[in-house]
Amino acid sequence: MQNPEHSVPDATPIDVDEEQLTHVAFNADGLVPAIVQDVSDREVLMLAWMNESSLRRTLETGRTWFWSRSRNELWCKGETSGDRQYVRWLRYDCDGDTLLVGVDQVGKGACHTGNRTCFYRSFGTQPRPATGP
Amino acid sequence: MQNPEHSVPDATPIDVDEEQLTHVAFNADGLVPAIVQDVSDREVLMLAWMNESSLRRTLETGRTWFWSRSRNELWCKGETSGDRQYVRWLRYDCDGDTLLVGVDQVGKGACHTGNRTCFYRSFGTQPRPATGP
Repeated sequence: MQNPEHSVPDATPIDVDEEQLTHVAFNADGLVPAIVQDVSDREVLMLAWMNESSLRRTLETGRTWFWSRSRNELWCKGETSGDRQYVRWLRYDCDGDTLLVGVDQVGKGACHTGNRTCFYRSFGTQPRPATGP
Repeated sequence: MQNPEHSVPDATPIDVDEEQLTHVAFNADGLVPAIVQDVSDREVLMLAWMNESSLRRTLETGRTWFWSRSRNELWCKGETSGDRQYVRWLRYDCDGDTLLVGVDQVGKGACHTGNRTCFYRSFGTQPRPATGP
């Protein structure tokens, strides 16, 4: 749902289904890992953690909200940097202990280093392509 | 590196670089989450956990090895089911606390339910596309 310039996507809430929320298995700290994937090209951008409150806010606002384990607070991705994520879909896995969030990433990318993806380094001493097969 | 029938990919080890391994930040339990992505179409297939031993075996064998938190043992994906994963690249994120593994998935898929991906359910009461933007 981007505008013709593809610059300002709309935030689109997802209906909160209480029955579905019961399928999410938060860990002993009340958290679940959330993988963030760009819907435009399926690049995996980052992984962060959600508690139930941040998951609800993510669904309700159509923006990604996470729980910071270092700062002990909720944060909305891009609220400071402008590198916002607009949620297009949100899935949960077979065990309910991992989330996958499809987003439109705006700005320079998801990583605080300035890279588009947090996964910009590969193992191996041979040069390997940064992306793709 | 698949054969002409695309049925039996080769296992291709990745050189183990000890300096790179020092960048991986295992948690208090000695584990790090590993996202598995299919290199053919970039579908996110699953998330499982690796300890240092399973990470080394993954690099050395070119197959995915994980640590089972429920069984307290190393396991090689597909060794029982035949639904094996052949590693094409392995990345680590900016903080070193998450891995991303690009694989050729063979067999019926990654999920024990018989689905190709573990992320086969979406939040929301409106029907949403199973994949893609």
